[in-house]
Amino acid sequence: MDLELIRELVVKNNTKIVLLVIDGLGGLPNPETGRTELEEANTMHLDRLAADGLCGVTVPVALGITPGSGPGHLALFGYDPLKYRVGRGVLEALGIEFDLRKDDLAARGNFCTVDSQGNITDRRAGRISTETCAALCEDLSTVTLPGIQVFVQPVREHRFLLILRGDGLADGLADTDPQRLGVPPLPAQAEKPEADLAARLVNDFIDQARKRLADKHPANALLLRGFSKWPDLPHVSDVFGLNAAAVAVYPMYRGLAKLVGMTVLPTGMTIDEELATVQEHWQDFDFFFVHYKTTDSRGEDGDYDAKVAALEEVDRAIPSLRDLAPDVLMVGGDHSTPSLLAGHSWHPVPFVIWSPWCRTDRSETFDENCCRAGGLGVFPATSVLPLALANARRLTKYGA
Amino acid sequence: MDLELIRELVVKNNTKIVLLVIDGLGGLPNPETGRTELEEANTMHLDRLAADGLCGVTVPVALGITPGSGPGHLALFGYDPLKYRVGRGVLEALGIEFDLRKDDLAARGNFCTVDSQGNITDRRAGRISTETCAALCEDLSTVTLPGIQVFVQPVREHRFLLILRGDGLADGLADTDPQRLGVPPLPAQAEKPEADLAARLVNDFIDQARKRLADKHPANALLLRGFSKWPDLPHVSDVFGLNAAAVAVYPMYRGLAKLVGMTVLPTGMTIDEELATVQEHWQDFDFFFVHYKTTDSRGEDGDYDAKVAALEEVDRAIPSLRDLAPDVLMVGGDHSTPSLLAGHSWHPVPFVIWSPWCRTDRSETFDENCCRAGGLGVFPATSVLPLALANARRLTKYGA
Repeated sequence: MDLELIRELVVKNNTKIVLLVIDGLGGLPNPETGRTELEEANTMHLDRLAADGLCGVTVPVALGITPGSGPGHLALFGYDPLKYRVGRGVLEALGIEFDLRKDDLAARGNFCTVDSQGNITDRRAGRISTETCAALCEDLSTVTLPGIQVFVQPVREHRFLLILRGDGLADGLADTDPQRLGVPPLPAQAEKPEADLAARLVNDFIDQARKRLADKHPANALLLRGFSKWPDLPHVSDVFGLNAAAVAVYPMYRGLAKLVGMTVLPTGMTIDEELATVQEHWQDFDFFFVHYKTTDSRGEDGDYDAKVAALEEVDRAIPSLRDLAPDVLMVGGDHSTPSLLAGHSWHPVPFVIWSPWCRTDRSETFDENCCRAGGLGVFPATSVLPLALANARRLTKYGA
Repeated sequence: MDLELIRELVVKNNTKIVLLVIDGLGGLPNPETGRTELEEANTMHLDRLAADGLCGVTVPVALGITPGSGPGHLALFGYDPLKYRVGRGVLEALGIEFDLRKDDLAARGNFCTVDSQGNITDRRAGRISTETCAALCEDLSTVTLPGIQVFVQPVREHRFLLILRGDGLADGLADTDPQRLGVPPLPAQAEKPEADLAARLVNDFIDQARKRLADKHPANALLLRGFSKWPDLPHVSDVFGLNAAAVAVYPMYRGLAKLVGMTVLPTGMTIDEELATVQEHWQDFDFFFVHYKTTDSRGEDGDYDAKVAALEEVDRAIPSLRDLAPDVLMVGGDHSTPSLLAGHSWHPVPFVIWSPWCRTDRSETFDENCCRAGGLGVFPATSVLPLALANARRLTKYGA
């Protein structure tokens, strides 16, 4: 979907749109019962919404492609995830709610183990504890570089975030992680001339860090990848004319919403607290992105029953959202996370949109097969936002 | 589908993927019974596969576009047939298994009839016999051009293949066939400066050939079209990480597979011999393209019953393929060939994919209508290979 076209057609009104993202929503059939998590779960409110609304399954990136959380959400926000890319360093920064600024160069780091020849023997340093990681990061934070602020923040286990803050730091650096054992880490190399300064500084950081880590076996070296800067995405206010709010428990999703200019509302740790936040701010925004994470987490755990339970939990949120009387209510997912695969997958994701003008279909239940057979069929996730705007009567006619 | 994206995401493993292409698979309802060839045929094994797997209908090029064999197969191999074009001269060379080399300039030739003014009276020279064509080609093969080897090979009836082999022969020549009667054949004209040399040499060939053909009425002149060179397609090994084998009875399909770097296995003339070839080489490759031609041939004949019989023949191949226990088994077609139209058509083509992770749908039979209602819906044929890779767990996540 071409954002320029949407921008041209957008009109404003007082309608309210809600998008509930059930992370990792889609699943696969349990081999014993032949039923997916959604088919198994008692989701009467979602089923009712499917019966009242218009269903389909979204393709986040392309058929066969398994999206990460970044591309999965950008697509639902209307941004082509192949065009708008968010680097791994930036995502890591979003994930720990680091206050990333426009000039920061971010990289994801791994502590690793090297042998006496300097060759990598473990790319994850035996998965050191998060506490050990934090102590190492604290030490490395005191590395000094000329004219540059250095931030080294622990993430989890062997993972950390490196931020260099200063003028003239371009992205466009190759990973220092060779992605295999028995060879030394690579030096940071500029992939374009503008990145020469950044490469020199990163290599200076690495040299100093390696000296401090020398006796910290198994975490006696480090690998960096996904060098990236804040991506300059057009904002939803500008493109879609939406004053949008994000309600999400996890920092990563708040961060992704921030990338596209949504206002991130403080909220609690449960879906009920998230719903209360929406209710509290109902008058202040015309678009609410509400994120529910547990379905993805339980899918990633490979725990079919727990994912079913999570679906039943989020199902109980639907009446509260409907009670707010939004003009457009949508429920979808950023990608599928079948518990059978214990990870994200490429499978299209169930989706439902309700509005007085949605042209309802014959769907009776909210699951993979029924949604697929619904009025929207298999369609790109980037069409979700334009469809929402249309149903909110926020798009004028294209052409005379 | 962007091949660069796929290339970035590909990982290798030991899975095996089979793609059975039933040429001209899709059909149209018999006006008397209302049933398509596939609906009429007793294809219990395909039906079973449809019930176990995930169905859809593929669009080879675009809705409404009838593909030739080249675009139809390239799409199934993952290559956008609008981006990757194979010239008619090259296809003709593949079709007669001419040993085409990178520097060869190929053209499809027609013997034609001209009157005493040199104007065309029959673009096909009364469809002279293949034997006559062969004799003329043998004569024209002895035409000499400076620094260039000349090959003139009979194809069938009035059709032949012209190859010029030598340095500096660019493609980019306009057809000499004006595609109408009452005018003379056109001279070969360069459409770009690099093709000037080729144009001069082709015109030299035409002049010499015309002298030799002068008394060979009705084949007293010739028309050339589709000047083309070996297209430099990225190879499936490079893009998809697949060590791929092709098993096909007809040269054209072996040639198309060769264009994308598949290993062409010698095989016999029947589907049983093709299956034996797959079995024999099962350990040596991770992707098998198996081509079945008879469905298309009987469709082209306009013979509904014979196409039904061919479908029943290829149906019996399914158990052999399933017995090999591939990780991913796919059955599709390069295009539809309804016997009602006695030719290729634009209709989407039934498709089924089976893998342990395919997310089966409610399809119970393998035919146009059931596949259309399947979980994949109507989708581009270029997504077939990415889907296969995803189901073989050969693609990593896109983005973090």
